[in-house]
Amino acid sequence: MKIALDVMGTDYGPKELVLGAVMAVKEYDCEVVLVGDEVTIRDLLKKYDEDTNPKLSIRHASEVIGMKEHPGIAVKTKKDASIVVATDLLRNKQCDALVSSGSTGAAVAAALFHLGRIRGVGRPAIATPIPSLTGTTVLLDSGAKVDAKPEHLVQNAIMGSVYAELMLNIKNPRVGLLSIGEEEIKGNEQTLATFPLLKDEKLIHFIGNVEGRDINSGVVDVVVCDGFVGNVVLKTAEGLATAILTMVKEAIMGGGMMAKFGGMLITPALRGLKKRLNPDAYGGALLLGVRAPFFICHGSSRANAIKNAIGAAVDGVKRDICSRIAEDIAMQTKADKVVGSLR
Amino acid sequence: MKIALDVMGTDYGPKELVLGAVMAVKEYDCEVVLVGDEVTIRDLLKKYDEDTNPKLSIRHASEVIGMKEHPGIAVKTKKDASIVVATDLLRNKQCDALVSSGSTGAAVAAALFHLGRIRGVGRPAIATPIPSLTGTTVLLDSGAKVDAKPEHLVQNAIMGSVYAELMLNIKNPRVGLLSIGEEEIKGNEQTLATFPLLKDEKLIHFIGNVEGRDINSGVVDVVVCDGFVGNVVLKTAEGLATAILTMVKEAIMGGGMMAKFGGMLITPALRGLKKRLNPDAYGGALLLGVRAPFFICHGSSRANAIKNAIGAAVDGVKRDICSRIAEDIAMQTKADKVVGSLR
Repeated sequence: MKIALDVMGTDYGPKELVLGAVMAVKEYDCEVVLVGDEVTIRDLLKKYDEDTNPKLSIRHASEVIGMKEHPGIAVKTKKDASIVVATDLLRNKQCDALVSSGSTGAAVAAALFHLGRIRGVGRPAIATPIPSLTGTTVLLDSGAKVDAKPEHLVQNAIMGSVYAELMLNIKNPRVGLLSIGEEEIKGNEQTLATFPLLKDEKLIHFIGNVEGRDINSGVVDVVVCDGFVGNVVLKTAEGLATAILTMVKEAIMGGGMMAKFGGMLITPALRGLKKRLNPDAYGGALLLGVRAPFFICHGSSRANAIKNAIGAAVDGVKRDICSRIAEDIAMQTKADKVVGSLR
Repeated sequence: MKIALDVMGTDYGPKELVLGAVMAVKEYDCEVVLVGDEVTIRDLLKKYDEDTNPKLSIRHASEVIGMKEHPGIAVKTKKDASIVVATDLLRNKQCDALVSSGSTGAAVAAALFHLGRIRGVGRPAIATPIPSLTGTTVLLDSGAKVDAKPEHLVQNAIMGSVYAELMLNIKNPRVGLLSIGEEEIKGNEQTLATFPLLKDEKLIHFIGNVEGRDINSGVVDVVVCDGFVGNVVLKTAEGLATAILTMVKEAIMGGGMMAKFGGMLITPALRGLKKRLNPDAYGGALLLGVRAPFFICHGSSRANAIKNAIGAAVDGVKRDICSRIAEDIAMQTKADKVVGSLR
């Protein structure tokens, strides 16, 4: 099995990604094709003493798409950008899955234009796993399609259920529609129109509306929303978690000798919690609805997160998640009506 | 100055609200009119030995609107509901401000139908103060208008700026549009259309798009979004804060003797933090754009939160926030165009 890894365009440069690949081929039964500037990658492999490792190979790409470029335009004009070259490896079946941590927009655009959607899927969605009090919740869409139609949200629910079942090992996952009240009558135009469609969809276990406070509480497994709301929710959670931990630290450091001593004593226990809350453990988010497993990591991912993402990609290929999504989308209740409305 | 307090329809019953009023009239220079079931209120006042306090009076209302009722229908059919009666006291100038902690939807509907909007305001917005690393951020709208037009968001920015200046004492408050990237090109249809309008609006200090992670970080004072997104963001933050504190507690309790001892030592320091993060300190959210200060508290507010909300209501009246909003909306850049589009 071969995983394509786009090593360019990330916050900490290619070194973290190359190191992640080195770690991954030792842990998982896979090869990794490193896509990006050949000289840079070769130098890094030499530095890590891995330049002769047969499980690691290089595919040169002369261009990079930056975080601030317009994704659609950049993907169309930079034919030799690393994310485009890596995606072409997937399309030509030279690789089985892809891991990227550059611009999310560019990754989604490359997947759409160079890999293509699964037949019947209106728009791909980014599925992000989030730690909850009882395990893991998957939130989707977290940024692929900002102005989603109700029919897109139904497909998000179906794809998210497959993800929860195959990637998180949750049987009959509970699907909730993210809204502003439990009652069917509460929501905006989009969610009010989506609710009855989800209620009618036989492929999923729909439990009704859920609220922001339910995401981390363990009462729901798949949280469905559009890419705008999902992205705002994820970044709010990220910012708040950082703010709370900063405030806790400030309170302890400003609380006198005893508080400082207490802070030292609880540090080992909190280290375990930090690990539990660390998004790196999941490796990345999965772009659902395209023709091969396509993982999108945070731009600030370190080697360990990349290693875990490659592990998740190996799982995705083994469990054949894309075929299962294709089957479910084909079986979708009222499929004709849905495909019609998405044209 | 007289504050109308709707004591019905809350999670803990009228006793917390009556107690909050008793505390408030001792601390602030105001009278409170308790609106709700007369017998219940009189019994509670007797119990607190305050039945002869001239600063507390009762206005009987025979009906209550429950949390699960359809707000618009309930407000129209229950003419003697406490929130309707309390709102009528405002309209008839028998009271200067109102505090409620029953159904938010019913409060907004009562304000719209029985009090009315400030001239030129398209839709009222709920302004919620949120603790940040450097002070307080105000988020609006947090639930009054779910499907807002760009012109509504511009008015939210103007009204939020007045709130930040008068209620939070922030000079020239920084206004950010909640979106999914800093760049002007990032967002959904709604925010992309709103950005240039905010950029052109001379009454506000617009700093561009902000993301979820900026809400608590102290880089922005007024965060503008529609009522759906704002409500989801607030409830996500509420749920995450609870989840993190639960996880911290679990980690400490499951971390052995030393961790437990450490937990005891940091408790006093964390108590201060809890106070800082406690939404009760702000008392409640303010419905901006209606003709008098109208505060909406959480359904689970205790006496202290109600007391603080009454204090905020007194401030709102003293600082004449509604007149200032009326002035700013009248001066709004391209006012004609805006009012036209809101008809």
